[in-house]
Amino acid sequence: MTDPDMQKRSYTVVGAGAVGLLYGTRLAAAGHPVRWLVRSELDALRRDGIEVHSDGALLRIDPADVVAATDPAGLPVSDVVLLATKTTANDQLVDILGGVCRAGAAVVVLQNGLGAEEQIRADVQAAGPVLGGLCFVCAHRVRPGRAEHLDYGAVTLAPLDADHAGLADAIATDLLAAGVQAAAIADLASARWRKLVWNIPFNGLCTVLDASTEELLADPDTRALVADLMDEVVAGAHAVGVALPATVRDEMLALTDDMRPYAPSMKLDHDAGRPLEIEAIYDIATRMARTAGAPMVRVDALAAALRFLDRRQP
Amino acid sequence: MTDPDMQKRSYTVVGAGAVGLLYGTRLAAAGHPVRWLVRSELDALRRDGIEVHSDGALLRIDPADVVAATDPAGLPVSDVVLLATKTTANDQLVDILGGVCRAGAAVVVLQNGLGAEEQIRADVQAAGPVLGGLCFVCAHRVRPGRAEHLDYGAVTLAPLDADHAGLADAIATDLLAAGVQAAAIADLASARWRKLVWNIPFNGLCTVLDASTEELLADPDTRALVADLMDEVVAGAHAVGVALPATVRDEMLALTDDMRPYAPSMKLDHDAGRPLEIEAIYDIATRMARTAGAPMVRVDALAAALRFLDRRQP
Repeated sequence: MTDPDMQKRSYTVVGAGAVGLLYGTRLAAAGHPVRWLVRSELDALRRDGIEVHSDGALLRIDPADVVAATDPAGLPVSDVVLLATKTTANDQLVDILGGVCRAGAAVVVLQNGLGAEEQIRADVQAAGPVLGGLCFVCAHRVRPGRAEHLDYGAVTLAPLDADHAGLADAIATDLLAAGVQAAAIADLASARWRKLVWNIPFNGLCTVLDASTEELLADPDTRALVADLMDEVVAGAHAVGVALPATVRDEMLALTDDMRPYAPSMKLDHDAGRPLEIEAIYDIATRMARTAGAPMVRVDALAAALRFLDRRQP
Repeated sequence: MTDPDMQKRSYTVVGAGAVGLLYGTRLAAAGHPVRWLVRSELDALRRDGIEVHSDGALLRIDPADVVAATDPAGLPVSDVVLLATKTTANDQLVDILGGVCRAGAAVVVLQNGLGAEEQIRADVQAAGPVLGGLCFVCAHRVRPGRAEHLDYGAVTLAPLDADHAGLADAIATDLLAAGVQAAAIADLASARWRKLVWNIPFNGLCTVLDASTEELLADPDTRALVADLMDEVVAGAHAVGVALPATVRDEMLALTDDMRPYAPSMKLDHDAGRPLEIEAIYDIATRMARTAGAPMVRVDALAAALRFLDRRQP
C-alpha cells in the first residue's frame, strides 16, 4: 500500500480456531480491518477479546475492537474471506460462505487437505477468486479466543485459476507486512499434494499411536513407515499429474526432525473428541490416486484405522 | 490305549499360561501323568494348585498332586513336552528345552506364529520328534495357576517331519479322549500359515486400535482392512509355496463373527505390559514373503506400528 490514505484490504476470518486466530490477529495488528464470522465463540470474543501468544509476543484485540458475528449480515463486506474452519464442516460450505461472500469476495482456503477450492468454485455462486492458503504452522487453540503459536507459521498462497496470480501476490504481501512468512506460487495442486506428504503420515500415525512427531521419528520402525507413507503420497501425486521433487520426502523428514515435538491437529481433534479431517486429508487423495491406477495401500489402511477411531468417538 | 495296564503317555507342560494350564489340566483329568516346568508360578502352583474354568466346568489339580519344578532335573522324564511359553522367550529355547527333552522326548509347539519347530530341530539336540500344535482357543490366565477358557479350544497337530505322522495321531487321540477337539494333519506349514491369516490382522489391529474382534468386524472400514490383511497373508503363503484354499478368508471372517467379542493374546500382552510376539507372528512371515517376491506391505506397516508400541512399553 503506497498510498497511506488508501484503505487497507479488509479480511473476514471464518472460524476462530488456532489458524484463524493467528493470521487474523496478525493482519489486524498490521492495520487491516479484520472481521470474524464465528459460532459458539461469539460471546467469549465479545467478552474477553482475542489473545494469541506467538513467538514470545502477545497479539491482542480488545473486546471493544472485535468485530464479530454469527450471521454474515451482521458484518461489513470484506475484500477477502479467510476460510479457517475445519474441513469436517465442509458439507455446509455453501451455507457458511454464501452470505459472507455476497460482494464477490475472494476466498482463501486455510484448510488441510484437498477439495475445498474446487468445491467453492463449483458451489458457492457468490464467491470471487478462490485461492489456497497452505499453512505450515504448529499452533493450537487454548480456549475460545485464545491460541498458542508454537512453531513455524509460513503460508503459501496459490490461486485456483492462474488469472488470480496477482491477487495471491497481493495477499502474500499483506501477510508478509503483518509478520507472516508468506509467499505466492503458481501451482495449487502441487502445493496441496506436497502438504499431504507431511499430513498423511503424521496426522494419522500420531493419532493412531497416540504419539508425537518426535517419538515417531526416533523409532526406526515408525520412521521407516512414515517414509513409506510419504513415498506412496509422492507416487500418488505423480499418478494424478502432480510432479513433486524427488527430495520432498527427505526434506519433510529433516524439517520434522528439527521441529519441536508436536501433536498434529488430527491428534488434538481426536484427544478432544472432535471429528477427524479424514475426507480432506485422506479420502479425496486416495480416490484420485486409485482412479489414476496408483492405489496408496498403506495410506488406505491408515485411513481405515482413523475412520474406526473417528466413529468410536463418544 | 487298548491295554488298561499300559501306562498312559506322560506330558511335561512348559509354561503355565492359559494354553498350558488348559491342555495340561485336561490331560491330567484324563489320567495322564502331567508335570509342569514353570518359573515364577512355582510357589503359587504348590500352594494353591491349578484351576481352569472351562465350558462351565472346573478343572482342578490339588496342590498335593501338582508335579512342578523350575529345573527340569527336578521332574520325571516325560514322553511328550508341550511347549506353551510365549515366543518372546524363544531366544532361550535351547536352555528351556535342553534339560526337559533329555530322553529324546517329543516336543509339541503350542505357540503362535512361525519358526519354533525348525528352530528346535536345528538347535535342541536332545529333542525327539517335533510337532506343531495349533491352538484355536480363547482363553486367558487370570493369575498364577488360574485360567479361564472362554471359547473354542481346538488343537491341530502336525509333524515337522512326515515320519512322525503316527505320533501326531497318537497325541491327537490323547487330547480327544481328554475332551479337547483335536485332529492330526499332515501339512504343518499350511496349518501355521492358515493360523497367521487370523492372527496377523486380529492380534495387530486389536492391539493398535485398543479394540475387540467384534468392534473391528462391526465397522465397515476395519472389516475391509482385516480382509485386505488376510488377502496379503494368503498371497504371501502362496508365494512361499503354501497353498491355502480360496475360501480361507471368508471362513475366518465368519468364524470370528460367530466368536464372542474377544481380545486376542497380543492385546492382553500389551495391556499387561508384556512383550509382544511380533517376531513369530509377523516378522518371520513378512521376511519369507518378501524374499519370495510377494511383500506384505499392509502387514509390514502393522508390524512397524506394533514394534513402536512394544518399545514404548514401560
